[in-house]
Amino acid sequence: MHILIIGAAGMVGRKLTAALAARGTLQGQTIERLTLVDVVAPEPPRGDIPHDLRAVDISQPGVAETLIATRPDAIFHLAAIVSGEAELDFDKGYRINLDGTRLLFEAIRQEGLRGSYCPRLVFTSSIAVFGAPFPEQIDDEFILAPRTSYGTQKAMGELLLADYSRRGIFDGIGVRLPTICIRPGKPNKAASGFFSSILREPLVGQEAVLPVDESARHWHASPRAAVGFLLHAAELDTALLGTRRNLNMPGLSATVGEQIEALRRAAGDRAVALIRREPDPMIIEMVENWPKDFDPVRAKALGFVAESSFDEIIRIHIEDELGGSIVP
Amino acid sequence: MHILIIGAAGMVGRKLTAALAARGTLQGQTIERLTLVDVVAPEPPRGDIPHDLRAVDISQPGVAETLIATRPDAIFHLAAIVSGEAELDFDKGYRINLDGTRLLFEAIRQEGLRGSYCPRLVFTSSIAVFGAPFPEQIDDEFILAPRTSYGTQKAMGELLLADYSRRGIFDGIGVRLPTICIRPGKPNKAASGFFSSILREPLVGQEAVLPVDESARHWHASPRAAVGFLLHAAELDTALLGTRRNLNMPGLSATVGEQIEALRRAAGDRAVALIRREPDPMIIEMVENWPKDFDPVRAKALGFVAESSFDEIIRIHIEDELGGSIVP
Repeated sequence: MHILIIGAAGMVGRKLTAALAARGTLQGQTIERLTLVDVVAPEPPRGDIPHDLRAVDISQPGVAETLIATRPDAIFHLAAIVSGEAELDFDKGYRINLDGTRLLFEAIRQEGLRGSYCPRLVFTSSIAVFGAPFPEQIDDEFILAPRTSYGTQKAMGELLLADYSRRGIFDGIGVRLPTICIRPGKPNKAASGFFSSILREPLVGQEAVLPVDESARHWHASPRAAVGFLLHAAELDTALLGTRRNLNMPGLSATVGEQIEALRRAAGDRAVALIRREPDPMIIEMVENWPKDFDPVRAKALGFVAESSFDEIIRIHIEDELGGSIVP
Repeated sequence: MHILIIGAAGMVGRKLTAALAARGTLQGQTIERLTLVDVVAPEPPRGDIPHDLRAVDISQPGVAETLIATRPDAIFHLAAIVSGEAELDFDKGYRINLDGTRLLFEAIRQEGLRGSYCPRLVFTSSIAVFGAPFPEQIDDEFILAPRTSYGTQKAMGELLLADYSRRGIFDGIGVRLPTICIRPGKPNKAASGFFSSILREPLVGQEAVLPVDESARHWHASPRAAVGFLLHAAELDTALLGTRRNLNMPGLSATVGEQIEALRRAAGDRAVALIRREPDPMIIEMVENWPKDFDPVRAKALGFVAESSFDEIIRIHIEDELGGSIVP
């Protein structure tokens, strides 16, 4: 089993690499090689799985062909320009998120024309493929009507994935990730960053800024759940998917107020007191147009699992990022 | 008012050209020039509107730029490889239906970067963006899940149109045409062709083949209604669309049996006797996976109008194609 991860240096890519290295198997087979690709060289996996680290841009001519010429059995395509940057840089967003994805899919098709080849391909999509107005809960048949270029590019990637899979070019599955919370690391400038930082910073005694009202509702899953989705997607019997290969993942619908109460239970009033309210009209309006809740019937029936409370999400963060305990 | 029609030599393109030439105005302004483009040279419009006829392939480098350099005020983008051919020729379908559309949109963006330019753009999409399983009626928020490469390419074009419009690059509207019935001209090899030929041929005393059961239900509109949709889309106040710029058009949901009874009322038992039943399992299965009925609330509220009976559709065919009467 040779596994290719494109976008391996990102947060989810690093955690997926670690999980694969720790398991040592996928689809019941020993992992014999990990090829890790990103625009910056990914770190090597722990342990002794043979690996290849490559710093390349998949939107450049010939790059996808070179990666696919090694005929990986399973491919995780995580690489993307994120929402904010794709909105600011029109050309770069389309080049990486649309053209990069299409070049990868096309390289697989061309390889298949040279001789039987049909790898499993797991594609990370996003709830950004949906745009307001929304029903109370978004069901599995809701229209793809993104309100960002990023969401547009992901929706187009999903459509390509379904068509290439229908034609037997690869065995694809698209995973629409919830917002990942608590995202580890430094605060970033993503408009959604506060959902993580209002928990992450106070848990280590630092201030965080809350730009929206406590009533704001959003759709979350932990980094650990996200890696779980990807691994499950790689092992799933795709015959169960029919022709609809892109799935809303399970997640947790919670208000900011509910997040804060979970923080209080985990780390007390002193932690909560570190959250500074600074309403930001632009972020308030963006969040208003983001999905708030889903009814992911298909993904649940197929065995995808997420957290059921913010207490659990905070506990996972403490276990995975803070060594298992916090200083109260 | 300078109007560009891409795909002007096709059936809908020719009828749209004729309608524009007859009206002489669009959006309350005199049409000063018609640029008609297709892979084969379109016929000149009747009347005295100055025109330009070009035989070009919009998927070739530089072609879209040349067309857009003349800064047309309204653009009708009708050009496409049809469903059957796009399924057989993977590369050609993606090249014309996806790349051609994107090159056109990009040419408009680049022209706008050189100086203020934001034309109205009407894009013909298709009910092929939807795939089974369906609800009883497809509503305005149903998922884009095509089951053909053609439907995939149209859905991707729709997503691009919405994103480019959201960014103010052009003022776009996508029109999801029902199956056009009665399609004039010779029988073609489209799997959906029988919906037209079982009426068109008997109306002129010729035999036609019916490959499905009379209970088969489908979604129809006349060529005249299709041209009406495009003209209305070109004149509509797009502020009413919000960010959802692609619309299910109104149409008529009817069974083959209902089509045949309308034929009997129009042309008698002798005409109906010219329909020969030849069940075709492949066509039966394809038709089973096509949309049967819609509830196009938004388009109706926006003033789009289609026929309400097959009697009306047959009468329109007799008026527009058979000189107003048939020999009984």
